[in-house]
Amino acid sequence: MPMSDLEFTHLDPHGRARMVDVTPKEPTHRRAVARCKVFMKPETTAAIANREVKKGDVLSVARVAGIQAAKRTSDMIPLCHPLLIGAVSVNFEIGDDYVAIEAHVDCVERTGVEMEALHACSTAALTVYDMCKSADRGMTIGELALWEKTGGKSGTYRRSSEV
Amino acid sequence: MPMSDLEFTHLDPHGRARMVDVTPKEPTHRRAVARCKVFMKPETTAAIANREVKKGDVLSVARVAGIQAAKRTSDMIPLCHPLLIGAVSVNFEIGDDYVAIEAHVDCVERTGVEMEALHACSTAALTVYDMCKSADRGMTIGELALWEKTGGKSGTYRRSSEV
Amino acid sequence: MPMSDLEFTHLDPHGRARMVDVTPKEPTHRRAVARCKVFMKPETTAAIANREVKKGDVLSVARVAGIQAAKRTSDMIPLCHPLLIGAVSVNFEIGDDYVAIEAHVDCVERTGVEMEALHACSTAALTVYDMCKSADRGMTIGELALWEKTGGKSGTYRRSSEV
Amino acid sequence: MPMSDLEFTHLDPHGRARMVDVTPKEPTHRRAVARCKVFMKPETTAAIANREVKKGDVLSVARVAGIQAAKRTSDMIPLCHPLLIGAVSVNFEIGDDYVAIEAHVDCVERTGVEMEALHACSTAALTVYDMCKSADRGMTIGELALWEKTGGKSGTYRRSSEV
Amino acid sequence: MPMSDLEFTHLDPHGRARMVDVTPKEPTHRRAVARCKVFMKPETTAAIANREVKKGDVLSVARVAGIQAAKRTSDMIPLCHPLLIGAVSVNFEIGDDYVAIEAHVDCVERTGVEMEALHACSTAALTVYDMCKSADRGMTIGELALWEKTGGKSGTYRRSSEV
Amino acid sequence: MPMSDLEFTHLDPHGRARMVDVTPKEPTHRRAVARCKVFMKPETTAAIANREVKKGDVLSVARVAGIQAAKRTSDMIPLCHPLLIGAVSVNFEIGDDYVAIEAHVDCVERTGVEMEALHACSTAALTVYDMCKSADRGMTIGELALWEKTGGKSGTYRRSSEV
Repeated sequence: MPMSDLEFTHLDPHGRARMVDVTPKEPTHRRAVARCKVFMKPETTAAIANREVKKGDVLSVARVAGIQAAKRTSDMIPLCHPLLIGAVSVNFEIGDDYVAIEAHVDCVERTGVEMEALHACSTAALTVYDMCKSADRGMTIGELALWEKTGGKSGTYRRSSEV
Repeated sequence: MPMSDLEFTHLDPHGRARMVDVTPKEPTHRRAVARCKVFMKPETTAAIANREVKKGDVLSVARVAGIQAAKRTSDMIPLCHPLLIGAVSVNFEIGDDYVAIEAHVDCVERTGVEMEALHACSTAALTVYDMCKSADRGMTIGELALWEKTGGKSGTYRRSSEV
Repeated sequence: MPMSDLEFTHLDPHGRARMVDVTPKEPTHRRAVARCKVFMKPETTAAIANREVKKGDVLSVARVAGIQAAKRTSDMIPLCHPLLIGAVSVNFEIGDDYVAIEAHVDCVERTGVEMEALHACSTAALTVYDMCKSADRGMTIGELALWEKTGGKSGTYRRSSEV
Repeated sequence: MPMSDLEFTHLDPHGRARMVDVTPKEPTHRRAVARCKVFMKPETTAAIANREVKKGDVLSVARVAGIQAAKRTSDMIPLCHPLLIGAVSVNFEIGDDYVAIEAHVDCVERTGVEMEALHACSTAALTVYDMCKSADRGMTIGELALWEKTGGKSGTYRRSSEV
Repeated sequence: MPMSDLEFTHLDPHGRARMVDVTPKEPTHRRAVARCKVFMKPETTAAIANREVKKGDVLSVARVAGIQAAKRTSDMIPLCHPLLIGAVSVNFEIGDDYVAIEAHVDCVERTGVEMEALHACSTAALTVYDMCKSADRGMTIGELALWEKTGGKSGTYRRSSEV
Repeated sequence: MPMSDLEFTHLDPHGRARMVDVTPKEPTHRRAVARCKVFMKPETTAAIANREVKKGDVLSVARVAGIQAAKRTSDMIPLCHPLLIGAVSVNFEIGDDYVAIEAHVDCVERTGVEMEALHACSTAALTVYDMCKSADRGMTIGELALWEKTGGKSGTYRRSSEV
């Protein structure tokens, strides 16, 4: 694909940053799903899992952090449009040496919620890191990606393969 | 290492979330370095690079976003202590199919700035994603990790190998 | 009423926190009225009243704080939906040993403004406390309750009696 | 006590609001404890308690909300000084027809943390209300009071009796 | 014009501050344009201009600051309604001894975006000041004014002459 | 003065934005005074003045807005260091066709409070504009300047003449 086919809608014809105009669009239902993983020692996942059996606090705090982050995405990402989140959920799966995070965001707006879903995932992941870092400083966060989006002019997108 | 050696300082003896007490510590100089990568098509890195030659706006906006995020880390990560950032810088390196991001944060405080450096990186990465997503929706963010920390009771940490 | 009739809409079937989906609803006019009281020494109410005659600053600052808090409710209450406040007013009545606060909030949204009205009241009350605490540290805030809500599927609610 | 003995330190000699000057003070260790109650139907406390046995989400979300609110007190209360919280904990006790909330806040600063402890309590209480309101709209929040403060020129304060 | 013709819609009949009710209005397309100038030494404008040729950072950072400020106007201006910005752009012109700033804001809302355009300009101007103040402390910001607004019941306004 | 004498401390040697390192500095007492004017029709100043005699709400709301803005300066100005304001006051003088605003800010920090004083002034001015704009859309804000700063390595600065 030649580069001229790439569209950078956040840059005006002179290359200056701007927030693109969404006012001509009608509000429609939008949905996005994003995922990431926090890679860690097996001892750390075991400790989180055991805590979860007892109290679930690491994932419970990370869930709240992700939900709140979804609401404040446009505060943190400069060219992201403000919008009113209609629903958010953040869920976790504990693997041998990782915690997987998935965020779903819905709204009825003039623009999509991809960034909100990604921001919810990354903030939940950073919260897991923060709560476990005294035990495992070498954790890494990765595979943060958009898995699905629906609604809007560009239609449906589904990630076809593993990251 | 047995699990009982792991310390989860954000959980009290009953497993409930709390912000750990740093008031007995003296403020000392702290520093942290974090890195991550935004993986993308070569056409996208080329487009960013060319823009950068002309105006540099993608990386320039991402840099500002990362700097501001460092300052607001404790707003987003629930059990993270508020602190006064003394210095932040966010830098980029453009590879064939990725943009690498590195954030340095310094302060004189009772607690470290690891989360601030990681948050600066992840927010800069999400900003790159946001600005390029109309051209390349399949980008992923990965290898977000702490590379160095100095200061504080736990002393110096340096990541020894590739993520 | 058996417990199974209680609905906890913020908890999903597995008891995990989530922000409930309001996207299937149509925006309609919503209104809520909340009230609370700051109980204090008669000397303190007298001082506020006399100041008000002159400058009104305690109540004037508390009114601004309540109005601003209404706008930021979803920032502070984790599972509360963001919405665009259409109108807010915060009013006061000075009794012998209390200041009564009433907040009215209106909007045209997919969800109600009960939390916004309660948050406006509690923040105005805390501001009264903050401004008077050097003179009367024993003040208490109480009787914070929803007095009326209209609009939405659940219809009109009016509190029938004294708290 | 004659009114002239009351001190309203947030008002300047002309009755205008201002943030009082704390720069001449030295930072010292400060601590505050505040409490409040959310009154509700016995069915509601039972439901919260049972959920807590299983997942604890209502109180877990409210705990996170209270901790975050403590950090952002000066954003919400206009004349409150910004300060760096050194520790926060928020705990709950479930009675027959109420949930009691207690917040502890510590810092090393030029001003006290009474407002931070009160704000943590009131935000945790509003979060309990928000999460249970679909089942019990008549809940009230009350008895929000400072129970203890230590540190600073005005010394130690302990509330001597029931609210 | 007699004073009684002046309308202060933010004050209720008793002179108390309130946020006026916009819920009876229908959302329509609104637009506002504001401008201001940062007056400075010719050496300072030359330095900014030269930097811009190379990297453009002063104006690039100020542009991002202005865009973000537009989104957060109702957080800073107490009686300003929250709204969802649909588009923002911030542009600069470098004169001999000033930098001129112009902000355009669009939305589809029940209330206008004049304050958002003015807030974007003033925040961009303060950012220019902040970035250059080590070299030129005597800069002043002036001529901040609304130049155009369209949409809404009060219709179109265009500033007819120089400030 | 040759341009090479100008120092742009927010730009690193490659012209990239960064937050300069203040960690080597010791905290000292800092103070800044800034001023600006809101120019308006004489009828508007008369209306504000009369309101002030009665209730003072326009200036009272603007004062609160300015105080709160001072606390949040580093949120809005990207390269501005976060710091803990120790005192703020915002005062007004009503002229024939303007309202003059003066803000004083004090702190004990590693960096100065010039931006905080300027931000308090500009936010108070925008609040005056917002509250009066329905009556006088042609108001302009100008003469925003630093009038005094003390403390820090660069010592005392006093503006020598009219803007």
